[in-house]
Amino acid sequence: MFKFRHPVPIGSAFASRVEIKAAGLNRHLMAGIDYDKDAPAKSIVISGGYKDDVDEGDRIIYTGQGGQSAPGSGIQVKDQELIKGNKSLVESYLTQTPVMVIRGARGNKNFSPIEGYRYDGIYLVTNHWFDQSISGPLVVRFELIRIPDERTVGSFESESKYFVGNPLGIAPRGNLNPNRGLFGIYAGVKRDPAVPAWIKKVYKDRCQICGTTIRTPSSTYSEGSHIQPLGKPHNGPDTTSNMLCLCPNCHVMFDEGSYYLKKDIVTAVNLIENVETELEIHNQHQISEEVVAHHRLHVAGVIS
Amino acid sequence: MFKFRHPVPIGSAFASRVEIKAAGLNRHLMAGIDYDKDAPAKSIVISGGYKDDVDEGDRIIYTGQGGQSAPGSGIQVKDQELIKGNKSLVESYLTQTPVMVIRGARGNKNFSPIEGYRYDGIYLVTNHWFDQSISGPLVVRFELIRIPDERTVGSFESESKYFVGNPLGIAPRGNLNPNRGLFGIYAGVKRDPAVPAWIKKVYKDRCQICGTTIRTPSSTYSEGSHIQPLGKPHNGPDTTSNMLCLCPNCHVMFDEGSYYLKKDIVTAVNLIENVETELEIHNQHQISEEVVAHHRLHVAGVIS
Repeated sequence: MFKFRHPVPIGSAFASRVEIKAAGLNRHLMAGIDYDKDAPAKSIVISGGYKDDVDEGDRIIYTGQGGQSAPGSGIQVKDQELIKGNKSLVESYLTQTPVMVIRGARGNKNFSPIEGYRYDGIYLVTNHWFDQSISGPLVVRFELIRIPDERTVGSFESESKYFVGNPLGIAPRGNLNPNRGLFGIYAGVKRDPAVPAWIKKVYKDRCQICGTTIRTPSSTYSEGSHIQPLGKPHNGPDTTSNMLCLCPNCHVMFDEGSYYLKKDIVTAVNLIENVETELEIHNQHQISEEVVAHHRLHVAGVIS
Repeated sequence: MFKFRHPVPIGSAFASRVEIKAAGLNRHLMAGIDYDKDAPAKSIVISGGYKDDVDEGDRIIYTGQGGQSAPGSGIQVKDQELIKGNKSLVESYLTQTPVMVIRGARGNKNFSPIEGYRYDGIYLVTNHWFDQSISGPLVVRFELIRIPDERTVGSFESESKYFVGNPLGIAPRGNLNPNRGLFGIYAGVKRDPAVPAWIKKVYKDRCQICGTTIRTPSSTYSEGSHIQPLGKPHNGPDTTSNMLCLCPNCHVMFDEGSYYLKKDIVTAVNLIENVETELEIHNQHQISEEVVAHHRLHVAGVIS
């Protein structure tokens, strides 16, 4: 299971951005958002730079970067765009990857350190939108909600592409018998976020059935679809050999049995249109015959 | 909000199927599943007819109908299919429409009445799959989970096409200011199930942007997509004038701002491909200019 490793204990204090950098929390000395190209944001620093930022402690409204007359001027002369740090925070939202938050003394007095900076743990980006600034051009805003610290140990669920090593790495082992339980009135299963993360990365968000890649303004999008479902009565394994990279449309149809895979694994049959298509399978992706047979019989209702 | 009206109080007793029929619970005298064509199941009777049925009180595994050598023989000579009553229970699953459950004396002793029949309230179909019977042919199985009675008053959330009058009916009023709150760490909004139900019915599950209709073995599928999002900071109304009928792929892209609608409302612009398409709009479906303008500015980031 995913376990977030805090680089320093939550609550750690720092005198300056130089110390924050040295601690591995944020590599910049001015900019708030630290990120790698095409990856979710690593951390943000909130230090009162944007007067429209809102800090309620457990909930933050954070303004994106770019478009000001000069850094920190507060005067927008150009629209902010979903590029660079802003793109990375959208990616954090889409992949539900936690972001580390560092607060500086110039922020909201109720939640900020008296002096210097403090590491305040991890937050989820739960929303993003555009607003028009007073000067006219657009700014991007992000809502972040604190992940309580106890949830960061062992039980945090997230489907990030970025929990796996770079650039592609070997397939994560996953879990042959994931933890199943009843949550509320629905059955649920603890999933390993590294499994869909690896699959989506291997296929670059391209649907293995129809070839579609969903494009969003800042990124691409796909879903990791279990072949033998995880829940009862199927009890499928949570492994890459039991997963396809699908677009949302093919995901609905595959789960409802509109498609099944033949014994050769590579042939996808659309039961409704009676059409066969060839599945795109990456040479590092092994699909299990057993889970394909289970899906064919128990989901699609095909005896063969 | 949806409020389920029980035809008789939960726990009501009946001496025979004739009495059950008279009470409006189930119109058959033998068959278990009562349904109307192309609609979710209305009710099921569990009375020990299928030895593979499982009754745990709050959870039921129910075997579908058809394919037996004679009704009640227990010998499968043909595959069960997703037609008739079985199709109606899949529709209950896809639309999350509650099903009334009546238990007869011949079922599991722990949960069945000593004699006659008893109305046991409503259940959700939470899963369906195929199994191979001992005789060989396939049977369909359904998992049903009890909806606690307190959830049936005022707060039950469901996206059924069938809560609205037949055949199409006037658009439901919805809610200009739906109830918003924090549930866990996520913000949530109480939605009126009649709103997406009406939209999906009007468009017959056909995507207004790309024209796709997702086809499943027993039915069709689409999603009701709010134009101005319901949650904070957007606070959109939960009304049909703020909703589009979209396929899951276009839903993801519309929510992420890959598409926006021009002032004429009918022109959908794909910002990434820079392509315009004409939205299919039914003559009974009024879309609000205001919500379209909100989505264009705050979701797609387009000032115009």
